[in-house]
Amino acid sequence: MVAAIIGTGLIGGSLALCLREQGLAERIIGVERSASHASRAVELGIVNEVAPLDEAIAVADLIVIATPVDSIPTLAVKVLNKIAPHQTVIDVGSIKEELCEMISQHPARGRFVATHPMWGTEHSGPEAAMRGAFAGRRVVICERERSDSDARQLVEDMYSKLGMTPIYMGAEEQDVHCAYISHISHITSFALALTVLEKEREEEHIFDLASAGFESTVRLAKSAPETWTPIFLRNKYNVLDVLGEHIHQLQVLRKMIERDDAEGLTETMRHANSIRRILK
Amino acid sequence: MVAAIIGTGLIGGSLALCLREQGLAERIIGVERSASHASRAVELGIVNEVAPLDEAIAVADLIVIATPVDSIPTLAVKVLNKIAPHQTVIDVGSIKEELCEMISQHPARGRFVATHPMWGTEHSGPEAAMRGAFAGRRVVICERERSDSDARQLVEDMYSKLGMTPIYMGAEEQDVHCAYISHISHITSFALALTVLEKEREEEHIFDLASAGFESTVRLAKSAPETWTPIFLRNKYNVLDVLGEHIHQLQVLRKMIERDDAEGLTETMRHANSIRRILK
Repeated sequence: MVAAIIGTGLIGGSLALCLREQGLAERIIGVERSASHASRAVELGIVNEVAPLDEAIAVADLIVIATPVDSIPTLAVKVLNKIAPHQTVIDVGSIKEELCEMISQHPARGRFVATHPMWGTEHSGPEAAMRGAFAGRRVVICERERSDSDARQLVEDMYSKLGMTPIYMGAEEQDVHCAYISHISHITSFALALTVLEKEREEEHIFDLASAGFESTVRLAKSAPETWTPIFLRNKYNVLDVLGEHIHQLQVLRKMIERDDAEGLTETMRHANSIRRILK
Repeated sequence: MVAAIIGTGLIGGSLALCLREQGLAERIIGVERSASHASRAVELGIVNEVAPLDEAIAVADLIVIATPVDSIPTLAVKVLNKIAPHQTVIDVGSIKEELCEMISQHPARGRFVATHPMWGTEHSGPEAAMRGAFAGRRVVICERERSDSDARQLVEDMYSKLGMTPIYMGAEEQDVHCAYISHISHITSFALALTVLEKEREEEHIFDLASAGFESTVRLAKSAPETWTPIFLRNKYNVLDVLGEHIHQLQVLRKMIERDDAEGLTETMRHANSIRRILK
């Protein structure tokens, strides 16, 4: 199989490495707007070559859109405009509602499979691409029934060989879920970093004590704004919804601390402890 | 050396295991209010025996107070009331201002070393005690000049053999720092767990997608309320200060999302990224 990967950063680059590792693609063509990313992607052996979008589309069996989410809907339409009926197109973005709406009436809609592999790190760019990524994680497949069965099969087999388990959802549902179990974690982490950086103006050595707990909650604040600004804005209403609820929960805890409400705090934290049944 | 460990949970239990592992104590006596913790601590080989407080104090060279922070100041005074001049007492709690005030005029103040080893996990009780804990971390020593030089030496040598590096601070400063780089991480994690658990009432399968990022930010929400309620309440003003700043930072991000302020979001997250210079 020949694969074209549009966007050779963390997700696209890792997918390229894994496709080759699993013997799923013998030739991988990168499409990159950034000249430095393009040359790094070749140097690091992520892609065999880089080519302009049209040239890559012309020869690829599978076309993967792995760019920031604000560019995905437009790119999806442009790619679908150009492909032949034997080609398959996927995206790997973390939001789906606008994308699925944009391509819903396209004559080639069946050739598209909307996917969201639930894997990532706080790093970005071709250097962040990892072998062995994705294994053991879920992959969301949205509006599965709108994809042709052969396209669906190709994509599900691919993810299965990468060690992923599919989970099927509507686009709207996936965007709500991701706001709650991924996007908000990034916002709290960014806000936590900002909180402590603010204090550092007064207390120079504040970070000398930084513990493992701090590292764990603030790790995601290293993530790239180029990735996350479009996610927060394109999933705006879901993100605002969860962010409002999160601020409310913090205010409830704040009031209990203000009132020395030991019983309330203990009860509330004990309820929060039930997150144990979710996490390993 | 004979050591008495008052409170054989995560921190006290781990310290007992490490003292034995490093050959620093040939006999370790546990003091435990909870009968089940006491028997587990013996079964797990954390302590050689359990004994009432007075009996343990009578024979120990080193007495370690490792109970929840609200009980530490009172226990410190009670222990100092009973010791002889060759004995040394330490605590391992995460806040210090009230403790240091309570013992400041005690005639045996010099026998006390106020320490905060910067290590922990989200687990609790004797089962959570770990060999090899503490290594590679910092240990805060407060009001070092108020401790006798032999007591200080004993304690600093002990932490050094456990692989810890000391950092010296006043009690007030340590409590501010810990609010910023430890306590707030726990509050955000608890609030994040509560946020998603709230949504789960409507969306049953919300956790099916839980990613590594989510696990990382919500891990601390598994922590014991018995440990954290007293920390939040005894470090109340510092915790409220940092919590207020954190809610403010979240509100700033919320407003930017509401206004589609891509430039502001990107700039703010890029500033948050500078947390990279702190974290490995």
